Amino acid sequence: KKINKVCCSSSQTLHSHWSNYIMSNGGGVVSSTTHLLDFLEEPIPGVGTYDDFHTIDWVREKCKDRERHRKINAKKKESAWEFTKSLYDAWSGWLVVTLTGLASGALAGLIDIAADWLNDIKEGICLNAMWFNHEQCCWGSNETTFAERDKCPQWKSWAGLILGQEEGPGSYIMNYFMYIYWALSFAFLAVLLVKVFAPYACGSGIPEIKTILSGFIIRGYLGKWTLLIKTVTLVLAVASGLSLGKEGPLVHVACCCGNIFSYLFPKYSKNEAKKREVLSAASAAGVSVAFGAPIGGVLFSLEEVSYYFPLKTLWRSFFAALVAAFVLRSINPFGNSRLVLFYVEYHTPWYLFELIPFILLGVFGGLWGAFFIKANIAWCRRRKSTRFGKYPVLEVIFVAAITAVVAFPNPYTRQNTSELIKELFTDCGPLESSQLCQYRSQMNGSKAFVDASPNKPAGPGVYAAMWQLCLALIFKIIMTIFTFGLKVPAGLFIPSMAIGAIAGRIVGIAVEQLAYYHHDWLVFREWCEVGTDCITPGLYAMVGAAACLGGVTRMTVSLVVIVFELTGGLEYIVPLMAAVMTSKWVGDAFGREGIYEAHIRLNGYPFLDAKEEFTHTTLAREVMRPQRSDPPLAVLTQDDLTVEELQGIINETSYNGFPVIVSKESQRLVGFALRRDITIAIENARRKQEGILLTSRVYFTQHAPTLPADSPRPLKLRSILDMSPFTVTDHTPMEIVVDIFRKLGLRQCLVTHNGRLLGIITKKDILRHMAQMANQDPDNIMFN
Amino acid sequence: KKINKVCCSSSQTLHSHWSNYIMSNGGGVVSSTTHLLDFLEEPIPGVGTYDDFHTIDWVREKCKDRERHRKINAKKKESAWEFTKSLYDAWSGWLVVTLTGLASGALAGLIDIAADWLNDIKEGICLNAMWFNHEQCCWGSNETTFAERDKCPQWKSWAGLILGQEEGPGSYIMNYFMYIYWALSFAFLAVLLVKVFAPYACGSGIPEIKTILSGFIIRGYLGKWTLLIKTVTLVLAVASGLSLGKEGPLVHVACCCGNIFSYLFPKYSKNEAKKREVLSAASAAGVSVAFGAPIGGVLFSLEEVSYYFPLKTLWRSFFAALVAAFVLRSINPFGNSRLVLFYVEYHTPWYLFELIPFILLGVFGGLWGAFFIKANIAWCRRRKSTRFGKYPVLEVIFVAAITAVVAFPNPYTRQNTSELIKELFTDCGPLESSQLCQYRSQMNGSKAFVDASPNKPAGPGVYAAMWQLCLALIFKIIMTIFTFGLKVPAGLFIPSMAIGAIAGRIVGIAVEQLAYYHHDWLVFREWCEVGTDCITPGLYAMVGAAACLGGVTRMTVSLVVIVFELTGGLEYIVPLMAAVMTSKWVGDAFGREGIYEAHIRLNGYPFLDAKEEFTHTTLAREVMRPQRSDPPLAVLTQDDLTVEELQGIINETSYNGFPVIVSKESQRLVGFALRRDITIAIENARRKQEGILLTSRVYFTQHAPTLPADSPRPLKLRSILDMSPFTVTDHTPMEIVVDIFRKLGLRQCLVTHNGRLLGIITKKDILRHMAQMANQDPDNIMFN
Repeated sequence: KKINKVCCSSSQTLHSHWSNYIMSNGGGVVSSTTHLLDFLEEPIPGVGTYDDFHTIDWVREKCKDRERHRKINAKKKESAWEFTKSLYDAWSGWLVVTLTGLASGALAGLIDIAADWLNDIKEGICLNAMWFNHEQCCWGSNETTFAERDKCPQWKSWAGLILGQEEGPGSYIMNYFMYIYWALSFAFLAVLLVKVFAPYACGSGIPEIKTILSGFIIRGYLGKWTLLIKTVTLVLAVASGLSLGKEGPLVHVACCCGNIFSYLFPKYSKNEAKKREVLSAASAAGVSVAFGAPIGGVLFSLEEVSYYFPLKTLWRSFFAALVAAFVLRSINPFGNSRLVLFYVEYHTPWYLFELIPFILLGVFGGLWGAFFIKANIAWCRRRKSTRFGKYPVLEVIFVAAITAVVAFPNPYTRQNTSELIKELFTDCGPLESSQLCQYRSQMNGSKAFVDASPNKPAGPGVYAAMWQLCLALIFKIIMTIFTFGLKVPAGLFIPSMAIGAIAGRIVGIAVEQLAYYHHDWLVFREWCEVGTDCITPGLYAMVGAAACLGGVTRMTVSLVVIVFELTGGLEYIVPLMAAVMTSKWVGDAFGREGIYEAHIRLNGYPFLDAKEEFTHTTLAREVMRPQRSDPPLAVLTQDDLTVEELQGIINETSYNGFPVIVSKESQRLVGFALRRDITIAIENARRKQEGILLTSRVYFTQHAPTLPADSPRPLKLRSILDMSPFTVTDHTPMEIVVDIFRKLGLRQCLVTHNGRLLGIITKKDILRHMAQMANQDPDNIMFN
Repeated sequence: KKINKVCCSSSQTLHSHWSNYIMSNGGGVVSSTTHLLDFLEEPIPGVGTYDDFHTIDWVREKCKDRERHRKINAKKKESAWEFTKSLYDAWSGWLVVTLTGLASGALAGLIDIAADWLNDIKEGICLNAMWFNHEQCCWGSNETTFAERDKCPQWKSWAGLILGQEEGPGSYIMNYFMYIYWALSFAFLAVLLVKVFAPYACGSGIPEIKTILSGFIIRGYLGKWTLLIKTVTLVLAVASGLSLGKEGPLVHVACCCGNIFSYLFPKYSKNEAKKREVLSAASAAGVSVAFGAPIGGVLFSLEEVSYYFPLKTLWRSFFAALVAAFVLRSINPFGNSRLVLFYVEYHTPWYLFELIPFILLGVFGGLWGAFFIKANIAWCRRRKSTRFGKYPVLEVIFVAAITAVVAFPNPYTRQNTSELIKELFTDCGPLESSQLCQYRSQMNGSKAFVDASPNKPAGPGVYAAMWQLCLALIFKIIMTIFTFGLKVPAGLFIPSMAIGAIAGRIVGIAVEQLAYYHHDWLVFREWCEVGTDCITPGLYAMVGAAACLGGVTRMTVSLVVIVFELTGGLEYIVPLMAAVMTSKWVGDAFGREGIYEAHIRLNGYPFLDAKEEFTHTTLAREVMRPQRSDPPLAVLTQDDLTVEELQGIINETSYNGFPVIVSKESQRLVGFALRRDITIAIENARRKQEGILLTSRVYFTQHAPTLPADSPRPLKLRSILDMSPFTVTDHTPMEIVVDIFRKLGLRQCLVTHNGRLLGIITKKDILRHMAQMANQDPDNIMFN
C-alpha cells in the first residue's frame, strides 16, 4: 500500500490513491477524478504566522513540526552533511534547555549578589572594598567575636561615615534619612528604567507567562530588552526595600533566556508550539533557582504555568532545573553552599496535637490569600480605570517612601525580607544570637552551650520581638496589597512567605509558652515534659509561610515539594500538607481563582484554565455565532466567488477566518480559511501570477470550475484551505466543547446540524460564555 | 437567558428555547417545533455500562460524572440531610485515597515482614520463637559480638537442627538440600494458588494496569481474590528465591486496594473514568511503599502508568503516597526506621571524570534493557504459541529448581536480592564486615576504626567477591529472562536493579583500584591523592542499578527521583541523570518500547501509547472502515426502520455501534447508537411497553414519523442516541486523529466528506494501522 505524501492541514495536496471512489452504500461521490499533483506550488511566505495578541492554533503548529521532522528524516540518508544536520536538529532541544539552565542560574546568582550588596548600601558601606556587602566586609575582620559578627570596623554606617559617630539620636536620624534616600533613589531608577525602556518588565510576569504558554502571542514580552531591564530593575526594586520578592520575576527572567536561546534553533524559533516547550522548561529552571528546588520547579511548571506539557518536556524541564541549580550553587551567592538563603534543617519531631495549630495557620493562610486577592484586584482595577493610573512613577515613589519611613524603625521590617524569613525559620540553637532566642534560662547565665534546646520561658527579648513581629505583620499585609501591581518587577512569593512566617512564628512561640506553663494539660502531658524540646517555633514559621503562599497562589503539590526541598526530612511533609490543603480549601471558599488567574482576567487575556471545571449544561448551539439576533454567518462558497466579492467579504467583517461551503443551498462544509492567509494569498497572487483580476473567479476545489470563455484566469486557493476543520454538532454539550478546546488547543470550531453548517465557536466565545455563566462581565475578554 | 437542563450525550432531552429557528443565511431548518419534555422517560437500566474486555468512552464517563455532580449540587439546598450527603460526596475522593494509602502501606509492611521470615526459613529456624527471622532471632542474644552478629545459638541452620552439626561437608549438603526443598515448596505453592484461585495474580501487573488506566475493562483483575492471592503468593514467590522482586506487584496490590475501596463510594464505583483517578493515586501509593519514595511514586504514576491525570489526581496521588509511606514507616518492617532496606547516605562528592564510567554504566544498562526485552518477549511468545505453555506449574518448578541449585553455592545469589542490593549500595565503612570490604590495610591489622575510608588496595576477599559477583551477574541475567512471565507474581525492578548494582560495583571497584595504583594518571592526579577517599564503589552500584532499571522500563524523571529519594543528597542526581539518559538513548536505539509496552503488545491489549509519536502521513480516509473491498458501512436511518430490521442489522454485524443518518440518499449524520444500548433498549421496550411488535417502526427523531393508521405503536430510541458524535473529515491527517483519540479518550470517531457520512474509525482501527505502519502484525490487537 502506497503511503501518500501530504502536507498537514494547511496545504493538502493529496495524491488520491483510488480514483472515483464511490461509496457503495449510498452513492455519495467522495473524491473527484485523479488530478495532477500541485507539488510545485510554492508555499506562500507569511502564511502560517500569527499577529501580535492573537491565539495560536496548537494543532496546526504541531502538524508543522511533524512535517519539518519528516522532511529532515527523509533527507538524513542523502549525505553526511544532512545526517549531521539531522543530529543537530535532534539535539537542539537538549542544547537549548542546557543553555537556558546555564543562563538562568548565572543570572540568578548575579541578581542575588547584586541585590544583597545594594540592599546593604542603604545602611552603610565597606571601607576596604566598596563592592563587599555587610557580611563579606566583616569576614576578613579579625577583631569581631562570634557574638558581634555584624559589627566590624571596616563596615561604616552612613552616620558613622558622615557624622563620625555610630551611636546617639543624631546618627539614628542620619541613618534613617540615608535609608529613605537610597530606597527612593533605587525605586525611582527602577520605575524610570521600566517606563522608558521595557514596559513589559514590570510585575511578576507569571500571569503573562501562563497566558503565553496557553498559546497567546505577546511580542517582546520575552525579548532581550525585557530581560536586560528586568534583571537590572529587579535588583533595584529588591534593594529599594519595597514589599516584594525576586522569586516570581526570576521565572520571567528564565523564560526570557529560554525564548532568546530558542531563536538560535529554527526548530523552536519558527514553531510557536515547540517554543512553548522550551518556555515550560525555562519556568522550571526559574523556580529551581528561586527556591533551590529542582523537583519543585518541575512540578511548578507542570501544575501552575504550563498548558501543553508532554513527557518529553518533563524530562527536559528537569534537566534545565538541575543545570540552573548547579550553576547557582557553584556561584554560591549566599556563602552557605546552598541555593537559597533560608535553607533549614530541623531535628526534632512534631506531635499529633500540633496539627491543630498547623491547620489554624492553614486557615489564616487561606483567609489572607482570599483577602489579598480581592483587595489587590480591587486596587489594580482602580488603577486601570481612574486617572491615577497615569502616574506610575509618582505612585512607585510614594509607596517606596511610605515603606521606607515605616519600615526603618522596626528591625524586622528594616532587614531584607529573605533574611527575615531565614531568621524566622531557624530554630533557636545555642549559637543563635537573635532577639527571638532570648529565653530566660539563657539570660540567667546557666549553661549556655547545650546541645538540645529545651522549651524555656520567654525572656523580655522574645516579648519585645513578639510586638515588633505583630507590627511587621500588619505593615507587610498592607504594603503588599499596594505594592503588587506597581510598575516595577515585583514578586509575590517572598512577601507572602514573610507574612506567613511571621504569623507562624508568633503562633509557634505562643504554643511553646503554653506548653511550658501548662505542661500538665492533657494535650501536652503525653509529649511535653519539662526540659524537653517539644515545640519548634521555626517549623511553625515554615508551615505558616507555605500556608500563606498557598492561599495566594493556590498551588498544592509543587508548593509542598518546594518547601520540602528547603527542609531536610520527609516527615515535615505532613504538617505542610495539612496547612496547604486547609489554606487552599479556605481560600477556594471565597473564590476559586489564584492571584495569577485573577490578574489574567483583570487584563482580559484569553486564557482557558485547565483547572477550572465547566459545570453548566448549555449546548454548543447556545454559544455559537450567529445567534438569532446576529447577522448571518460570513461564509465562502467553494467555487463561485470572485476576487472582488471575496475582498468585499473580508473588508466588511472582522472575523479571523471563514468557513468554506459547497454552496449556499446545501450548506455542506468543505473547510476553513483564515483571514490572514486569504489576504496574503490574494496579494501574493496579484503580484506574482499574471491575469489575476478583480473579476477572477476564486476556487477552493481541486479543479477549476467551468467558466465562460472570456472570463479571466481563475485563482486557486486550495493550498490555504484547512480541509480538516474541527466540527461539533449543535447538540454537543458545552462541557465537551470546552474539553476539546482545552485538550487540543483549538482556536475555533465549527458547529453543524445533520451535516449542515450552522455556526462557529471561537475561544473568545467560550471565554465570554464562561464569564456570563459566572455572572462576570463578558466584555472583559479582549483578545482573540 | 434560560439555561436548559440537558442530560449528557447519551440522553439528550433538550428544551429548545427558540423554536423553528431557521438559519438566515441558507435556509437549513435546524430544530423542529417545540415539543413536550420527555423527562419522565426512565433511564433504561444497563445503558451506559460496559462489557468485559471493552474500551470505555472517557468523554461519556466524564459527562456522566458532571451530571451526577450537578444533581447533587442542585439537591444540596433542599435539606440538611442532602447537604450532608453532598459533603460526603465531596469528601469521598479524599476518603478513598486515604483508605487506599492505609491499606497499601499495611499490606506492604505485612509482605515485607512475611517475605523476610519465609526467606530465612530456607536456611534455618529460630529455636526460641519460630516467627522470628534470622536477624530478629539474634537481636535478643547476649553472646554475639558485633562482628559475628549473624551467628547466635538461638538460630539453628537445618543441618544443625537435623544432623546436630553446623560445619562440615555433610551439613553443607544438608543445608543445600533443605534450601532446594523449601524453594521448590514455596514455588509450587505459589503457582498452585495462582492457577487455582486467581489467574490474574501472576506477573507484575503493571502492563495490565497501564491498559486498564488507559480505559479498558478487565473484570476481576483488581478484585478481592486477586488481591488476596497476589499478597500470599507474592510472599511465597519472593521467598522461593526466584529471580524476581516484590516492587512491581506491590503496585498491583495497591491498585486492588484502590479498586476495592472505590466500591464503597458510588461516585467511583459507578463511573469508570473516576475509578481510574483512584487507581492512578493507588499506583503512586504502590511505588511509594515499594521504594520509600512518595514523590517518585507520584511521578511514576504520572509518567509511566497513568493516562488521564488531571491536577486533582496529582494532589490526591501525593496524599495517598504519603499516607502509605507513613503507615509503612510506623510498621517499620526493616528495623531501620526507613521505608526500604537499601536506603543509603553517601558523604563523599563525585568528580567530573567519573562521568565516564557512569555513562559507560548507562550504555550497559541500555544494552541490557534492549537485550532483556527482546529475549524475554521472544521467550514469552514461544510460551504463548507452543504446547509448552500449557504446563505453567511444571515450568515454575523447573525454573525454581535450577535457580535454587545454581544460587546456593554463591553467597551473592543465595541471599535475598534486596539484601544483596543493600550490600552493594553501601560504602565500605569501618563497621562493614562484608567480604566486599576486605581491603588490604584493614587486614594488616592497622587502625580499624577510622572515620574516613580512603582508597585502599583490594585484599583477597575483594578479589574473591569480584569473581562471585561476575558469576552472580551472569546467573541473574539468564534467570531473569526466563522468570519474568512465569505464572507467579513477579516484579522486574529488583532483579534489574541487582544486575545493575553488581555491574556498577564491579566497575566501581575497578576504577577505585585503578585510581589507587595509577594515582599519577592525568585524570586521577587532580582529585585522587593517596590516602584520600575519592571513589565510592557504592555510588557506582546505585548508578548502575538506575541505568539497568531505566534500560528495561524506559522510565526517566520518575526513576531519577525514586533513586534520589533513596540517597541523601541532591548532588548525586547528576550522575544518575547521565546514566539514565544514556541508558534510555542506547535502549531506544534498539527499539522504543519498554518492557511493559512490549508485554501489552504481546497480549494484544488496545493501548494507545501517549509517548509514541505518530509520524506517518496517512489520512483518515485510508484508515477508516469501510475500505474499498469491505462491505458497506452498517448505518441506521433515523425514522424508517422496523424493530425487526434493526435486530437484523444487529445480528448480522458485530460492530459495537452504528451511525444514524437522516436518510440513505442524503447520508447526513444525525448521531451514533451503541449496539449494547440498542439491544438493551429493545428488550426493555418489548418487556415493558405494550404494543411494541417486530413490525413497530423505530425512530430516533424527536417526533414520531407519520405512519399508516393500522401500523403498530412506534418505538422511540432517541434517549440512547448520542447526538454529539465526534467527526473528522476524510482529509484529516491521521496524526491529528491519533491526537484526538489520545487526548479525549475516544472509542470511535466518524468520518465525513463535505457533510456526508463516509465511514468510521475505532481505536482498534488506529492500533491496527499503527502496527501496519511499523511493519508489525496488525492482527495482534485483539480487543475492541
